[in-house]
Amino acid sequence: MTDSGNSANNGVNVEALIAAREALSKAPEAAIFKWRAACEWKNGTHSHSTVEGYYGLGQEQRHKRTFSFDADHPEVFAAEDNGATPVEYVLVGLASCLTAGIAAVAQHRNIQLRSVTATIEGDMDIQGILGIDEGIRNGFGGIKVTYKIDADAKPEDIEALVAQSQKRSAVYDIVTNPTNVTVVVN
Amino acid sequence: MTDSGNSANNGVNVEALIAAREALSKAPEAAIFKWRAACEWKNGTHSHSTVEGYYGLGQEQRHKRTFSFDADHPEVFAAEDNGATPVEYVLVGLASCLTAGIAAVAQHRNIQLRSVTATIEGDMDIQGILGIDEGIRNGFGGIKVTYKIDADAKPEDIEALVAQSQKRSAVYDIVTNPTNVTVVVN
Repeated sequence: MTDSGNSANNGVNVEALIAAREALSKAPEAAIFKWRAACEWKNGTHSHSTVEGYYGLGQEQRHKRTFSFDADHPEVFAAEDNGATPVEYVLVGLASCLTAGIAAVAQHRNIQLRSVTATIEGDMDIQGILGIDEGIRNGFGGIKVTYKIDADAKPEDIEALVAQSQKRSAVYDIVTNPTNVTVVVN
Repeated sequence: MTDSGNSANNGVNVEALIAAREALSKAPEAAIFKWRAACEWKNGTHSHSTVEGYYGLGQEQRHKRTFSFDADHPEVFAAEDNGATPVEYVLVGLASCLTAGIAAVAQHRNIQLRSVTATIEGDMDIQGILGIDEGIRNGFGGIKVTYKIDADAKPEDIEALVAQSQKRSAVYDIVTNPTNVTVVVN
């Protein structure tokens, strides 16, 4: 079912999302999700992670298939470079979250997207992780995301799309605000 | 070259890391890294990201190969589930960062690891991203990481390993502390 006044088609089912918003506002317990991954150490700094199931809408859910990821450190850290580095996974998460949001907001605003590409870069002074200077953080000093967007819209409307995506992005929130992490050994 | 008193072999070249620490403390400009990803919108909430080059040790660097990642929203969000969700990428990044750190610290402390597995779970109330309740954040309410570690060490030494890995983890820092993110449209 498409909105009759909506001619843009970015492949996002906004009607379903609006219906979900309505349904979940009446049944907030169904809005509790638990996202998961499993990680297995291989050798050195190389690990293999899988993403398969999650919890939401009141029950266990499964992805259509199991997604698998190798992570490692690069050769300049005397490692084998068997996969992207952990921090690059965070960058992929942030860029893909903002990009999905741009498509969804564009659909909602009846803006036809033709192409959306982003480059994302995070600065890191590795004196932090190496323990050289306690005043230098382990993570990124800052992150810059640069979009190129070809869309049937004025530049200011494209800017507004990106701003709204940031406002609703889960990963943008995770990176820009603190989250409590508990680590236990069983 | 291995430390003569060090019999554990977890595949981490700790000697090289210690040498790097020494070298970089004398040449701090070489410790400035820039990690990158590129993201291309496919359709709907599906995007394709690549990780290929980064900057560090004063010059452009390349991974041994290009790492590619599909991200999407799941079918319960009326999407096509063509890849892991962006927030699951963050979980993979966090689990793999802590796991690499455990291997490195174990090597440094001469603890032989036999197996290390982690499950990681992030709670999310999706009333946040759906805009139902402005008081609910978009990201995770909290994250729990649970390790099972089989190693040639006492339980308290294994706990200490994990604690030290947290202390030096880039992604743990990124998730638990705020990072400035700038998003621009070119």
